[in-house]
Amino acid sequence: MYSFKNDYSEGAHPNILKALMKSNMEQTEGYGEDKYSIGAIKLLKDKIKCNDIDIHMFCGGTQTNLTSISAFLRPHEAVISASTGHVLVHETGAIEATGHKVISVKVDDGKLKPIHIKMAIDEHTDEHMVKPKIVYISNPTEIGTIYKKQELKDLYDFCTKNNIILYVDGARLGSALCSKENDIKISDLPRLTDVFYIGGTKNGALMGEALVICKEGLKEDFRYHIKQKGGLLAKGRLIGIQFFELFKNDLYFDLARHANFMAETLKLGIKECGYKFLINSSTNQIFPILHNKTIEKLQENYLFFVWQKIDEDNSAVRLVTSWATKDEHVKSFIDDLKLISK
Amino acid sequence: MYSFKNDYSEGAHPNILKALMKSNMEQTEGYGEDKYSIGAIKLLKDKIKCNDIDIHMFCGGTQTNLTSISAFLRPHEAVISASTGHVLVHETGAIEATGHKVISVKVDDGKLKPIHIKMAIDEHTDEHMVKPKIVYISNPTEIGTIYKKQELKDLYDFCTKNNIILYVDGARLGSALCSKENDIKISDLPRLTDVFYIGGTKNGALMGEALVICKEGLKEDFRYHIKQKGGLLAKGRLIGIQFFELFKNDLYFDLARHANFMAETLKLGIKECGYKFLINSSTNQIFPILHNKTIEKLQENYLFFVWQKIDEDNSAVRLVTSWATKDEHVKSFIDDLKLISK
Amino acid sequence: MYSFKNDYSEGAHPNILKALMKSNMEQTEGYGEDKYSIGAIKLLKDKIKCNDIDIHMFCGGTQTNLTSISAFLRPHEAVISASTGHVLVHETGAIEATGHKVISVKVDDGKLKPIHIKMAIDEHTDEHMVKPKIVYISNPTEIGTIYKKQELKDLYDFCTKNNIILYVDGARLGSALCSKENDIKISDLPRLTDVFYIGGTKNGALMGEALVICKEGLKEDFRYHIKQKGGLLAKGRLIGIQFFELFKNDLYFDLARHANFMAETLKLGIKECGYKFLINSSTNQIFPILHNKTIEKLQENYLFFVWQKIDEDNSAVRLVTSWATKDEHVKSFIDDLKLISK
Amino acid sequence: MYSFKNDYSEGAHPNILKALMKSNMEQTEGYGEDKYSIGAIKLLKDKIKCNDIDIHMFCGGTQTNLTSISAFLRPHEAVISASTGHVLVHETGAIEATGHKVISVKVDDGKLKPIHIKMAIDEHTDEHMVKPKIVYISNPTEIGTIYKKQELKDLYDFCTKNNIILYVDGARLGSALCSKENDIKISDLPRLTDVFYIGGTKNGALMGEALVICKEGLKEDFRYHIKQKGGLLAKGRLIGIQFFELFKNDLYFDLARHANFMAETLKLGIKECGYKFLINSSTNQIFPILHNKTIEKLQENYLFFVWQKIDEDNSAVRLVTSWATKDEHVKSFIDDLKLISK
Repeated sequence: MYSFKNDYSEGAHPNILKALMKSNMEQTEGYGEDKYSIGAIKLLKDKIKCNDIDIHMFCGGTQTNLTSISAFLRPHEAVISASTGHVLVHETGAIEATGHKVISVKVDDGKLKPIHIKMAIDEHTDEHMVKPKIVYISNPTEIGTIYKKQELKDLYDFCTKNNIILYVDGARLGSALCSKENDIKISDLPRLTDVFYIGGTKNGALMGEALVICKEGLKEDFRYHIKQKGGLLAKGRLIGIQFFELFKNDLYFDLARHANFMAETLKLGIKECGYKFLINSSTNQIFPILHNKTIEKLQENYLFFVWQKIDEDNSAVRLVTSWATKDEHVKSFIDDLKLISK
Repeated sequence: MYSFKNDYSEGAHPNILKALMKSNMEQTEGYGEDKYSIGAIKLLKDKIKCNDIDIHMFCGGTQTNLTSISAFLRPHEAVISASTGHVLVHETGAIEATGHKVISVKVDDGKLKPIHIKMAIDEHTDEHMVKPKIVYISNPTEIGTIYKKQELKDLYDFCTKNNIILYVDGARLGSALCSKENDIKISDLPRLTDVFYIGGTKNGALMGEALVICKEGLKEDFRYHIKQKGGLLAKGRLIGIQFFELFKNDLYFDLARHANFMAETLKLGIKECGYKFLINSSTNQIFPILHNKTIEKLQENYLFFVWQKIDEDNSAVRLVTSWATKDEHVKSFIDDLKLISK
Repeated sequence: MYSFKNDYSEGAHPNILKALMKSNMEQTEGYGEDKYSIGAIKLLKDKIKCNDIDIHMFCGGTQTNLTSISAFLRPHEAVISASTGHVLVHETGAIEATGHKVISVKVDDGKLKPIHIKMAIDEHTDEHMVKPKIVYISNPTEIGTIYKKQELKDLYDFCTKNNIILYVDGARLGSALCSKENDIKISDLPRLTDVFYIGGTKNGALMGEALVICKEGLKEDFRYHIKQKGGLLAKGRLIGIQFFELFKNDLYFDLARHANFMAETLKLGIKECGYKFLINSSTNQIFPILHNKTIEKLQENYLFFVWQKIDEDNSAVRLVTSWATKDEHVKSFIDDLKLISK
Repeated sequence: MYSFKNDYSEGAHPNILKALMKSNMEQTEGYGEDKYSIGAIKLLKDKIKCNDIDIHMFCGGTQTNLTSISAFLRPHEAVISASTGHVLVHETGAIEATGHKVISVKVDDGKLKPIHIKMAIDEHTDEHMVKPKIVYISNPTEIGTIYKKQELKDLYDFCTKNNIILYVDGARLGSALCSKENDIKISDLPRLTDVFYIGGTKNGALMGEALVICKEGLKEDFRYHIKQKGGLLAKGRLIGIQFFELFKNDLYFDLARHANFMAETLKLGIKECGYKFLINSSTNQIFPILHNKTIEKLQENYLFFVWQKIDEDNSAVRLVTSWATKDEHVKSFIDDLKLISK
């Protein structure tokens, strides 16, 4: 059984384990104030080409989202999210648990545009309603699409003009930035967002996300919030070492490029078999529409999610590739599909 | 510079890194439903000699505390803690951030007794005050003392009779259970507590705490709370593998015993130099009272916390040993102290 | 200018003021433990024909909703509401501020049916999502429609079978129970709901809502929650006296019947002028669709909300009548409309 | 039985009921935007001699405290309160329920001084602890003492210098300002506090507190918080009318002066009988120390709280007078005490 269920089925890239081994018996400061974490932050600032940002390390995405969103909002302020947004449905009400409403905006391609934000602002007219204050987007989105530079710029400009914070969930940021369709560089992000995070867990780390706070007013006292929400790891070096390894020789981008390439190869193979896709994704998640019997057959050898019913006979499935996916896995899947589809 | 600041200055015990290496490229289920986590839980149940318990893995202590305490309480219910309790002062109001008051009870030795709980109950008479519902203790306490079996039994019986939950923070549980003065076995705990956690971070793991829920009524839907508070690690295997290694051949207890032995050796050496201690600790934290000039001298070669001012000339310091402390570090510290104390 | 904006534009029914006058200099216990509050609760239990219920008095609807919903839920549990639900949009995220998500279900007539609850349950499959636990409905709904007895019974049965609490916001309960189309008696409610509240503010009281907890498991320690959320009035008699007056000679129902009759009269008059309605309401809120120019004309003499744009030329407006609306106000409005519509 | 239990045993001053009567059938705007509320705010600004303040009306003290404190704080920030502070013990954890720790400072006379604030600041050194941000005091304190102008000035200056907000709970502000020992005018308060509230409930109103926000940065969006916490009364005029009546001819101060005078008379009478007091209060609460048998005898005719055990034979009791206390009640109490004490 090979799994295309997600991009966190394996452990970490070997370089990371090697680095953990090598540093293991050194004594360091706790709580992310060690030389490895400091080094990783410095390296990230170099890559992002910006010194005027604050970087904090977290264990996971939900924790990153809930800690930062609650730190940035006053009690009456709310988040705007696409109807597909991860914070909206798949984090067990983590944002609401910190006291804030998440306003859902129905979209088809997973992406928010200025018009959506305008609608949400216009609907919230007075103190009997919450006040929209953060726009939450994911890049790539939860359904694999990405924001083009101009789209992100338009959104950011609109937010800024309306005194709204633009927050980018980058759980799979590597995959977005390495997509063939992408025209955004990591060093563009401080000029296109207020806050974003660089996901490690889904791109080769054991765990770890690096939150980048660009907007000045959001930086103060941030470590208090990490501690309060339970996110300040005693051995913070564990995340520092990983991000250092991931960005040392641009390994992070190599891994993401590989994952995307595997997805692209899958996509081509599936297309060749005559199948259509639910959505056009250029990242490491793809959503082919298959006949239910084909799905059953494939499930004998592969794990993946059945994403959405299309009609009585067909469903869209989700296939996720990763830094660890090998050519042979992809080839074998396509060969099997061809066989089944005959 | 050698650090006696805490027991999380190094990485992990080498066995753990080896196990991570070995399993690295296997694909497993996410979110703690992998075979390693399942295996670790089975192993822990064997060691605790109880099947009727639920075990959940967390990244760190504050997260464990806040997630479980908020899961167990209704909004008007409160926690009782010793004035030295970690949740009371050193977790940035994490419990209050989930909506619950922590009631402080002044104690000298870090330990709560039934009389303290009775006082707190008696003071909270009606609906104008919170309702005490959880007693939070640490074993060992934050100042290194431990609960004897009878003390814990008395406390648990009193809590049970008063419909109060007894929660044991076991960030350094290994050190308590391996103390020379201890008479509690890990398999006693389900009959002496409602909930406790087994700390990994401070006893050889990269990170990780295993929460053990003994009381039936507290078990339902617990994973929802872990996810909501950001504690559900995508690669949950990371903690599962560690706890499996720690408990496989009782490594956990070996490491704790070693840490205690190092502390004991330190203590003896310091006593021989004629110094007194702030408190009589039998675990891996000791609190000698030294002359301020002696402290300054020692700080040239060692890192440690100055804990408390005693008088104009003397202060208590905290020295922490760990699984990674070597004989030579202890010997060197004592030799230096002898030299300075001449 | 006469206002049809809402049913809380005037003070209180004169009987209430008289009763306040009469009792004014008596000394009573505080916090709702006075003889008037106790008397009002006894009287309400008689009217509801049930002794096995707990009744608590509040100052307003949002406070009633947030206090009780947060008292009934564990942190991971959520509320299901119609898309028109008051808690969803018009209470500034009051429920979310206590930590709970409100799940929106799109409906046209303001009413939730078992099928809607089933959908919400089916979509929330595991611990990565919140757990639906309370169904919040309003009777009458926010758009004036009411639940028939069988509809409420079906909903309640479905909820009960699925271990879900049915909560009825009765801000305008009098108007629902006195609607010509209604077949529910107030004494039916303990068998058709788990919790409901009887709104006073919108039916002749200065302020005040009486929460009725029917389900046994929801009763414990409830006064703690009222106090904690700031709802325990020192001079609780103020609400007790009002509810006593309102229910003494069924004044509450007389007032609601009057308000409904005024709305019915308005409706007939408007119909006679040839206008249609956005929705068929049998309570004290009606939603005629008027030409925008007609609306402008009417606004010279009357206050009301323009509710919804219908097309370029027409909008639905909301007209609300109350216990204080007089025949002459209704007559004058219809006369003016006739004149304008010629 | 005459009750000296508190100052909210009766209804409202007759002028208030008359004003409610008179305005009853007028239609007004809802939610505190009516002409009466606007008029009351204007009048209060005149009395306070300051236009640069925002005034909001609430139903009760706990609601005022929890709404404003949670509106002013970020999640990691905390409140400092005297150990006798109302928010600390007698509001069912209302502040903690909004997510914030209340730090207790032990004091004997109920009053906080700069030294206490300094201690709390000094103890909270880094992100592992909450950050003190609001100093909560009551004037008069919960045990009847008052702040002198210089004391308040020193405290305010110290807070301001340390970027801390000074919040004054004025549940009995009238009594403080009308105390013989007082040297503060209501018009001094904007220069001596950041926020304070003027209590109506305990000085002649049916209910109602007027929050005065002096500090600019705390004013924004405040009505959102009132609504979210359930404090925005639909018929806001109810409070507006009351505050207008209370301040129209300085009735508020007349009532407070009367309550204080009644307490003073009681105090003198009790002193003459040879009794001592727990604390020297110059407001409407006094705390004589009586023999337990004397207390029992008095309890046959009077209601009051036994406040604190002094020794085996004696206890301090609390006697509270109010705007409604009559000479005859005081005289009768003293006569009875004299008789018993013979």
